[in-house]
Amino acid sequence: MTGTLFGVGVGPGDPELITLKGLRCIEAADVIAYPQLEDTPSFARSIVSDFINDTQDELPFTVPMLSDPGPAQLAYDNAAKAIAMHLDEGKVVTALCEGDPFFYGSFQFLFSRLGETHRVEIVPGVSSLMSCAASMAMPLSARNDILTVLPAPLSDDDLRDRLSRTDAAAIIKLGRHFDRIHALLRALDMEEQAHYVERSTLPNQRVLPLDRVDGAKVPYFSMILVHKRGEAQR
Amino acid sequence: MTGTLFGVGVGPGDPELITLKGLRCIEAADVIAYPQLEDTPSFARSIVSDFINDTQDELPFTVPMLSDPGPAQLAYDNAAKAIAMHLDEGKVVTALCEGDPFFYGSFQFLFSRLGETHRVEIVPGVSSLMSCAASMAMPLSARNDILTVLPAPLSDDDLRDRLSRTDAAAIIKLGRHFDRIHALLRALDMEEQAHYVERSTLPNQRVLPLDRVDGAKVPYFSMILVHKRGEAQR
Repeated sequence: MTGTLFGVGVGPGDPELITLKGLRCIEAADVIAYPQLEDTPSFARSIVSDFINDTQDELPFTVPMLSDPGPAQLAYDNAAKAIAMHLDEGKVVTALCEGDPFFYGSFQFLFSRLGETHRVEIVPGVSSLMSCAASMAMPLSARNDILTVLPAPLSDDDLRDRLSRTDAAAIIKLGRHFDRIHALLRALDMEEQAHYVERSTLPNQRVLPLDRVDGAKVPYFSMILVHKRGEAQR
Repeated sequence: MTGTLFGVGVGPGDPELITLKGLRCIEAADVIAYPQLEDTPSFARSIVSDFINDTQDELPFTVPMLSDPGPAQLAYDNAAKAIAMHLDEGKVVTALCEGDPFFYGSFQFLFSRLGETHRVEIVPGVSSLMSCAASMAMPLSARNDILTVLPAPLSDDDLRDRLSRTDAAAIIKLGRHFDRIHALLRALDMEEQAHYVERSTLPNQRVLPLDRVDGAKVPYFSMILVHKRGEAQR
């Protein structure tokens, strides 16, 4: 008799954007697991902190953000082992994940380690892809649009090629790449079709045209949405 | 003093996948508006039917599914006029939308008609893009993956080009296009990397390899996810 691991997408930041099912899985948990960065409290936990009660065990694990994936893989190995011990005791473990667990989500690294040996259920969440479009009050895609999601660390050549062949694009994981991406969009004559949003759905959310963004202060949780059609379709 | 229009994404089908905010906007509504097809009850309404009470007015509007967009545009014109009358009386109108309002969602066609004249708030929802990955228990994208969303009605040339230049793809709006897409994926030697899901998160959900799908019975709400990397990253 082993327990169940729920991988819950807690949404983009506004606590009200968790799903009813996600909330139920948090309330039912014996153990709440979540990733955190060194020196920073867990963003995923902060979103749902009002829903966690003090009878629940918490299992934070620190994931290093380095270009070498080795230390992060070791962190997930250790977190998976700790979670497996709880599951083997028959406990319910709910792992929190910002946004959606399987859309560039951290939960997949626990799933790849535990999915074959334990009972795991994925609870999808509201992704920042959708919430950023809502924050901008600009539709993401319609009808037969091609939509391409592009991580900012990709090379200029890759980005240029994909941006020139899509109807709409979301450029994610901006952080320190903002100025390079901005220059690229300007060179492609797509600056006017692009908008920037940071901290979507949080109280300090900001939506800006690209030329008003300070590239030195762009957080990791920011995104550029590009709409080649320029305006909403009717 | 005019009312507010909430555009609420009600998620992919499981009523528990609505957000707390979406539920609040439904409960607060004087009027619930939703699209329906001819001869078919509204799918969006069916998802949240338990949350609607009989003191609330309902405003269904019928949207024809034709290749000529004219009749659908007329339907949205008329629906927007009816909604505007309620807003002008100071009422709260909540418009339901399957999945997310701005990700290929129907709500954008109300937004394009009412967004400049009335107070409109978008409430993002869980998209079928994310729920299909959860249903398949296969991550959609990780790290610096490029993810491309491709509507099935696109030409073979367009699909072939984009599929050959992406790490992961979601092919949406399958319906009667399934057999053509299946042949295309086979020709690209990508059949093994592709999986099919229909009615994600509903009790009659099915996840199948492509060669077990009957192309004559593929519903509109179905999707193929392609993962070129073949398996989850660690």
